[in-house]
Amino acid sequence: MGGSGKEFVREITPQGEDFSRWYTDVIRKADLADYAPVRGCIVFKPDGYALWEKVQEGLDRRFKATGHRNAYFPLFIPESLLKKEAEHVEGFNPELPWVTEAGGEKLEERLAVRPTSETIIGEMYHRWIQTYRDLPVLLNQWANVVRWEKKTKPFLRTTEFLWQEGHTAHRTEAEAREEVRRMLDVYRDFVETDLAIPVIPGRKTDTEKFAGAVETYSVEALMKDGLALQAGTSHFLGRNFARVFDIQFLDEDNQRKLVWTTSWGMSTRVIGATIMVHGDDRGLALPPKVAPTQVVIVPIAPQKEREAVLARARELHSALRGNLRVVLDDREEYTPGWKYNEWEMRGVPLRVELGPRDLKQNQVVLARRDSGEKQAVPQATLAARITELLADIQADMFQRAKEFMAGHTAAAGSLGQLEEIIATRRGFVRAGWCGEAGCEAAVKERTGATIRNIPFEQPDDPGPCVHCGGKAVHQVYFARAY
Amino acid sequence: MGGSGKEFVREITPQGEDFSRWYTDVIRKADLADYAPVRGCIVFKPDGYALWEKVQEGLDRRFKATGHRNAYFPLFIPESLLKKEAEHVEGFNPELPWVTEAGGEKLEERLAVRPTSETIIGEMYHRWIQTYRDLPVLLNQWANVVRWEKKTKPFLRTTEFLWQEGHTAHRTEAEAREEVRRMLDVYRDFVETDLAIPVIPGRKTDTEKFAGAVETYSVEALMKDGLALQAGTSHFLGRNFARVFDIQFLDEDNQRKLVWTTSWGMSTRVIGATIMVHGDDRGLALPPKVAPTQVVIVPIAPQKEREAVLARARELHSALRGNLRVVLDDREEYTPGWKYNEWEMRGVPLRVELGPRDLKQNQVVLARRDSGEKQAVPQATLAARITELLADIQADMFQRAKEFMAGHTAAAGSLGQLEEIIATRRGFVRAGWCGEAGCEAAVKERTGATIRNIPFEQPDDPGPCVHCGGKAVHQVYFARAY
Repeated sequence: MGGSGKEFVREITPQGEDFSRWYTDVIRKADLADYAPVRGCIVFKPDGYALWEKVQEGLDRRFKATGHRNAYFPLFIPESLLKKEAEHVEGFNPELPWVTEAGGEKLEERLAVRPTSETIIGEMYHRWIQTYRDLPVLLNQWANVVRWEKKTKPFLRTTEFLWQEGHTAHRTEAEAREEVRRMLDVYRDFVETDLAIPVIPGRKTDTEKFAGAVETYSVEALMKDGLALQAGTSHFLGRNFARVFDIQFLDEDNQRKLVWTTSWGMSTRVIGATIMVHGDDRGLALPPKVAPTQVVIVPIAPQKEREAVLARARELHSALRGNLRVVLDDREEYTPGWKYNEWEMRGVPLRVELGPRDLKQNQVVLARRDSGEKQAVPQATLAARITELLADIQADMFQRAKEFMAGHTAAAGSLGQLEEIIATRRGFVRAGWCGEAGCEAAVKERTGATIRNIPFEQPDDPGPCVHCGGKAVHQVYFARAY
Repeated sequence: MGGSGKEFVREITPQGEDFSRWYTDVIRKADLADYAPVRGCIVFKPDGYALWEKVQEGLDRRFKATGHRNAYFPLFIPESLLKKEAEHVEGFNPELPWVTEAGGEKLEERLAVRPTSETIIGEMYHRWIQTYRDLPVLLNQWANVVRWEKKTKPFLRTTEFLWQEGHTAHRTEAEAREEVRRMLDVYRDFVETDLAIPVIPGRKTDTEKFAGAVETYSVEALMKDGLALQAGTSHFLGRNFARVFDIQFLDEDNQRKLVWTTSWGMSTRVIGATIMVHGDDRGLALPPKVAPTQVVIVPIAPQKEREAVLARARELHSALRGNLRVVLDDREEYTPGWKYNEWEMRGVPLRVELGPRDLKQNQVVLARRDSGEKQAVPQATLAARITELLADIQADMFQRAKEFMAGHTAAAGSLGQLEEIIATRRGFVRAGWCGEAGCEAAVKERTGATIRNIPFEQPDDPGPCVHCGGKAVHQVYFARAY
């Protein structure tokens, strides 16, 4: 480390030059993660893991408020269990790592390292659920999962990743469908409120749905490079897993019936989304609600006033840290300018500057990471002002991301138009679709764009299919995606 | 479910009849865990996982207060990395599961599913640590680990388990040794304060230390069946891993030096310890600090007064639940007596009974799970009284466990005496030991007891070795152990 602030920032490739390099530069410079000596895996460094802890807090609180409890199921899934649901195993099979030896012996049956847990949980629900009184079962699990991906990228697609997976069982189809939509809305609320990322909720096409689901719903976000990212999914599994794992209950009418199940997940890839929605050429920019450090205090301390400035900085630090995540940067080996750049690069939402002149005037200068705005604030009202400003920053970051998304969403009436938008400006393209997988595949083949989802909000007349010109059944969002 | 309270409790084998069956009965009846369809694995059910969440909260707070941060390292460890530390791999090799196939191909190098993470973390510290300014590195990880154990038992020894593992690197030996003792004391404090389990802190013998450590320290607890349980360990790794992974730093004196490392861990087995230290023939008994439910309100509602009693019960529930983890059991299908038994079996520390007479007198009856004591309390002072009582229960449970441990700790002057105590009363046996592994092994061979640890508190004269009669260098604690 060391050197001037300018040099520091120069180590980050500008977004306009190479967005992908900008992304990995920011992760490295902001010390979020490192590549691990295992194919496609990363190490979550403390600043990266702290973001995940904030995601966990935000989601866990919402899961519990909607009646869910946490449980934990085994990492290993015997091959015979995994194979029970044919579509499911077909979808995941190529991505599975297998444990074949253990305890010094070759195993009689291979064990998959879980890519997701529907099958092992299905087996347990079969044992646990006897009557309608046992329903609904509303469980969530925080876990690591593994998928042997060909191309990997930190946070977005890694061999091992961290996530939560909710698994519920219900008495009726209506109740299960309600749960699927409720949890999708929990995801929407979390991503929009806490991560300040606007999303489009909707239903996946059959081509893009989860292996084994009847329907998959998603919330889709837009990154600053114009590529979409699926931030969370909620699956209506119908009775597919119930049938295969024989999850039956005795209903009030004395009939034995199969349960209806759902599953829903959000992973560490939302950290990647947060980086790519809010970051800029100066580095990371974190929404206050999830920023591990919300406020940094930088004393500007010329030699002769050092003690007085530092003493006041420490007082402010003590006063603020009861309610805020605040750091005092009193390192002597760096200049204030260098520190400004570093903390901006690390995405801290608000900086408190305190120099000799501020000391005399009983004020501080506050600088916003998101807008660069500065303002002098009396020390007496500092805590209240910071709380207000953090709320403003959170709201403004969300607003800017919404404007970016609106500015990068266009309607296309023809395939040529769709192709041109995807090739030049990218973003979301709203267009009619006839519902045929052939048209969906043809658009993907020609433009690289997939149907991200079929949004809940639909016009009265979706117009013609953007590919075949036939009558569309939905308007959908096309985009190239992570 | 259903039936009378007596039948209910009869389903738990009495401790005196078969402690091991009592243990698994309690886990099943209190719905803490279930056996999984994977060799030696369990499923943590919500009430069991909630206990782990309380352990996580209690430890995580203490780790952060002592300057540690969380990170996350990969689940898989390439064989070549794991083999670098010879003693380490020898210690763990028989217990390892190996991934040999993934992504549809046979892997060029086998990947171990982590039994612990010293090696992969050593590799990363090698990359991250350059100068003395990078030290100390104080990281912790919450993770699942796998050890292919021959004999398994829920929570105590399972193929996969959950734990935290701290890994730190230091500039000097003194600093690393201080860290090892600091974290052992964090464990002691957590286990004693939150789990109400007294422990003996001390150093392990060379035979019993962690594979690859210079020294291992432990906190040892005593279960109600007289068997000891190692509740947490803290390892001084010296420069063993630093040497093997070449973790060097440039010191202030411009010399390149190896770092000193430590590691320390506590796992889900402390849930087993909590069950076995506090439970009784009526079932689980949980210390208030970690009880997922601290208070249960049971309304006693004869038909004609049902509405009035339930209304007041709901008011009390609302008033209490801001600061306490409280449940209102207003199920109509069970009698109050049945509910008393059920909640006692589930270990809830305090019960609030509210009937028509209490309603008239503006009081409730409080019943303690630990002592069975009942007392009438005015509703006006209920919240304050409950807070006091929960603190009393916590303190009394700890006190009783201390008395049990004291009552089951004896000194032995001869091998015959040691053997007799272990064979009849079990518990801890304090005796002199000459320091020779041969004597340690001979005692184990003859009595089944191992040296649990060499306690920090030592008499001036440790007396003769309990085995060879030679001069002892320490007094140690022998016990049979889980």
